Amino acid sequence: MANPVVPSSGALSPLGLSGVRLSPGFWGSQPTQTIIDHCYEWMDRVGWIANFGGGPRRGREFSDSEVYKLMEAMAWAGDPRVEELTRVVARAQELDGYLNTRWPTARYTDLEWGHELYCYGHLIQAGVARMRVHGEDQLSEVVCRAADHVCARFMEGNEVCGHPEIEMALVELYRQTGAERYLEMARRFVERRGGPALADIELGRAYFQDDVSVRQAEVLRGHVVRALYLSCAVVDLAVEMGDKELLETAEGQWERTVARRTSLTGGMGSRHSGESFGDDYELPPDRAYNETCAGVASVMLAHRLLLATGDPRYADQIERTLYNVVAAGPALDGHSFFYTNPLQVRVAGEVVEGVSPRAEGGLRAPWREVSCCPTNIARTFASLPAYVATGDDQGIQVHQITAATISHDGLSLRMDTDYPWSGKVTLRVEAAPEAPRRITMRTPAWAGGGTHEWERSWRPGEEIRVDLPMAPRWVRPDPRIDAVRGCVAVERGPLVYCAESPGDAPPLSEIEVSTATEPVERGADLEVEAHRITTEPDGWPYGGPASGVGERLPLSLIPYYRWGNRGPATMRVWLPETR
Amino acid sequence: MANPVVPSSGALSPLGLSGVRLSPGFWGSQPTQTIIDHCYEWMDRVGWIANFGGGPRRGREFSDSEVYKLMEAMAWAGDPRVEELTRVVARAQELDGYLNTRWPTARYTDLEWGHELYCYGHLIQAGVARMRVHGEDQLSEVVCRAADHVCARFMEGNEVCGHPEIEMALVELYRQTGAERYLEMARRFVERRGGPALADIELGRAYFQDDVSVRQAEVLRGHVVRALYLSCAVVDLAVEMGDKELLETAEGQWERTVARRTSLTGGMGSRHSGESFGDDYELPPDRAYNETCAGVASVMLAHRLLLATGDPRYADQIERTLYNVVAAGPALDGHSFFYTNPLQVRVAGEVVEGVSPRAEGGLRAPWREVSCCPTNIARTFASLPAYVATGDDQGIQVHQITAATISHDGLSLRMDTDYPWSGKVTLRVEAAPEAPRRITMRTPAWAGGGTHEWERSWRPGEEIRVDLPMAPRWVRPDPRIDAVRGCVAVERGPLVYCAESPGDAPPLSEIEVSTATEPVERGADLEVEAHRITTEPDGWPYGGPASGVGERLPLSLIPYYRWGNRGPATMRVWLPETR
Repeated sequence: MANPVVPSSGALSPLGLSGVRLSPGFWGSQPTQTIIDHCYEWMDRVGWIANFGGGPRRGREFSDSEVYKLMEAMAWAGDPRVEELTRVVARAQELDGYLNTRWPTARYTDLEWGHELYCYGHLIQAGVARMRVHGEDQLSEVVCRAADHVCARFMEGNEVCGHPEIEMALVELYRQTGAERYLEMARRFVERRGGPALADIELGRAYFQDDVSVRQAEVLRGHVVRALYLSCAVVDLAVEMGDKELLETAEGQWERTVARRTSLTGGMGSRHSGESFGDDYELPPDRAYNETCAGVASVMLAHRLLLATGDPRYADQIERTLYNVVAAGPALDGHSFFYTNPLQVRVAGEVVEGVSPRAEGGLRAPWREVSCCPTNIARTFASLPAYVATGDDQGIQVHQITAATISHDGLSLRMDTDYPWSGKVTLRVEAAPEAPRRITMRTPAWAGGGTHEWERSWRPGEEIRVDLPMAPRWVRPDPRIDAVRGCVAVERGPLVYCAESPGDAPPLSEIEVSTATEPVERGADLEVEAHRITTEPDGWPYGGPASGVGERLPLSLIPYYRWGNRGPATMRVWLPETR
Repeated sequence: MANPVVPSSGALSPLGLSGVRLSPGFWGSQPTQTIIDHCYEWMDRVGWIANFGGGPRRGREFSDSEVYKLMEAMAWAGDPRVEELTRVVARAQELDGYLNTRWPTARYTDLEWGHELYCYGHLIQAGVARMRVHGEDQLSEVVCRAADHVCARFMEGNEVCGHPEIEMALVELYRQTGAERYLEMARRFVERRGGPALADIELGRAYFQDDVSVRQAEVLRGHVVRALYLSCAVVDLAVEMGDKELLETAEGQWERTVARRTSLTGGMGSRHSGESFGDDYELPPDRAYNETCAGVASVMLAHRLLLATGDPRYADQIERTLYNVVAAGPALDGHSFFYTNPLQVRVAGEVVEGVSPRAEGGLRAPWREVSCCPTNIARTFASLPAYVATGDDQGIQVHQITAATISHDGLSLRMDTDYPWSGKVTLRVEAAPEAPRRITMRTPAWAGGGTHEWERSWRPGEEIRVDLPMAPRWVRPDPRIDAVRGCVAVERGPLVYCAESPGDAPPLSEIEVSTATEPVERGADLEVEAHRITTEPDGWPYGGPASGVGERLPLSLIPYYRWGNRGPATMRVWLPETR
């Protein structure tokens, strides 16, 4: 089964990349191959591939993982260069399976920050992808040797990696190979956390989820990507071990995290400091970190929870996060990337030509010193079909609406749609067995929620038509989210909209919008009624006269994921509302 | 003249610590000696004093500076232990004047982060304080040897220290000794910045004010304490060189910084990341950094600008910052300290018994790995009289209202007041010359601004009475400050108030206040009318039903500087306003 996640049980079963083929459309037309090529060229240029051949070490301590994530993307995409990279990587593996280009640093002497096990995690995920798409080859040998080395070295004792990732990879390797030691190793890594298992650090133990055990934590916390990767493993383990209580714990943590620590876009991470979740309801639009990789990780977690439980709220969150975080990461041309995805940018970013040293959200950069996001986008785009549908004995369950062909057990459906630009969806039966089959399709929460369901014997040529209500809507925040009090946002279908102000427009800090009239559609964009507010010149900014309402002006809104594609600009999702 | 700043010219002239004596009252009763003792004991315990005797090095690379800041506090306070510390420090000085306990690290090999020149700055300020209070002694020898070493090593070339501080110290040493090389060295250090003079760092060049020259910068930016210390030197240099244009530049930078980058409390620094100013109008109450040391530095800068220009707006800012940042730093008992001073804390802090590794604002800690704030409070409290009044041929100018005796040129005034608890101020003439004298007193901006002025021949026993309006007032923010939109704060006199919620009160995240009725005084505290709002259980927090207004309840407000003295609690200054 060519799917990133293949649980041995669960409410829903993946169809994999062979069961779902994307057609041209919002997701089918993403520049996946361009991004893979871009990542390959940059990693070649900055020396992260050459690191495997020895010589002077280039890049950060976790740069090996970028090569592995690219290999995973290539495996899903059927890009034959994965074989060439496998040969490069294999040459660096030591006899006992140890594999890390930072040698001759002593092994495993800095588990807090060393990222050695983290890198194995991505290596293993690449290997599993390759096995599932292509079958066993040199990469699976490298991967199993590394995984066996990890089991030999870490099965006893109390050590874990500062950055979770290997845990879910080992579960998947178990699922692929059946070797139970990988599952057991994953279980021990997960259960050791919070013991504690790592040294104390200035950022605090919650940073790497070593503050409390995964069974006792109330909510996800600390470094967002670490927290989400670990939670993926918790769900995987709960499923493989049939541990219902653990699954419910993970569901509760997810629910509270989504309710209290998630931006409107689905982005997670309110603090630059520690790349971390903040406190409950600490959701600043301007300093939201919302790392692109956190969006990827959030989709990975929700995908696992959806398969395990069948609850459509997870598919809703996948949709929101894919359209408004993951799609926002890369530029439309696939050659530059956001690291952070805030909901407000007050000062237009500066164009970055080469490697950007900093993780800011003002403008996309072609590459960064920490360049985790481009390869994470590459492997996510290359495996997008995994999220579209599942299948079982009864039929097919459609979770994501996008132009695609879905085939399972003799039933083949062509989903035609211009979604998210149109709410019209046609499911055309292209092939069908004699026996009746049930077809279900999620109604997005924003359209009222629930599930469409049709069950009968199907004939080729039959069509199901759904028309989702695509009128733009005003959205207001929970009053506990202090940072956006008195503001409204606009959504249309699954898309969050934003105002983007290139040089000549009025400053976005000096407008208010009126919700007395509804947003008007202008193609993919929207227009709302705004007023310019009058502001005081520089003086003490508290206790002055109330601002007046100035000239009326129409304000254009664009889909959030498209912002930053027209050069340096300011941007905001949450718009102050005229009272 | 026993004053931290003694300009050779300027609109106003300091009276120094001998010209102003504080009486018991808000400032005169601060636990200054307790804090000096506390700092001495802790630095002895954690080994920062012992570092000067050799042996294993303890503490961070800048820990020498804490010893020097304590010595400065002792010098102002007349604490004889400054002599004992001088002997300890002197033994560590090398023959050529170099003095740093990090030896045998190679000298000046990391100007970006090494803090060697920064430490000299604090050493020099301690030496100048000692010279001004006591006269020359071993400490002045140590200081001049170090300063001469700096001149010899750095006069040519393009090097500066990553952390500004030595610049203003050298100007003051010039003012004290008359040696022009110190002024010239300071000038070169200041003018080199932005050239650039330092290596690039991940935080960006603005972090240490090496992005643009001090003459071209529009606003203060980067690391707040660094920016403010540098700006102090800019004002000092402008005054000593008679450079009006440079002074106007510094005034403009200050004006824009106060208008766009300053919290209601006077706190500066919106980002934990880089301990930095954020963008214009990025002023989050919850993640405000507002380092205690930044409050001290802001007072130092405003004091210099007040002396240079005579503009009372600088005295207004000193008042605001002293009452609402500096006074908030230490606990009422003087034995624990805030590092950061946010305007909202959602999660009650945890009690810290020993050395706290982290700079959080939830609860004061007795000591920290980076413990710059306690010694900065100590030297500020020990030199508080400097800020109260100035004098000239015409008479006395009173800038800060507090119980004190002010003497200058035969005129002696006793200022009696319970300020800030009462607005009644009595200036009683205790001694007076025959000739007429002019007495002026600033009317705080919150009371309408302007200056009271009385001029005549005075007789002992004569009294001037002023009664400032102390009714509490609602304050609203500039609409560009997104983070506190829809909220109000309450001030009374110079004090900012806040709601503090110990365990049993309703969560501060679930209240709104009504401004239909005025705040009622309850001793030093206030009471406002609030409502509990109803909130939804955990679910998607956007687009849900509007919150309802629930039970009415009175909400107590306390002076912000007093918060966190009753154990772990949540707190907020900005209160959502019922509409």
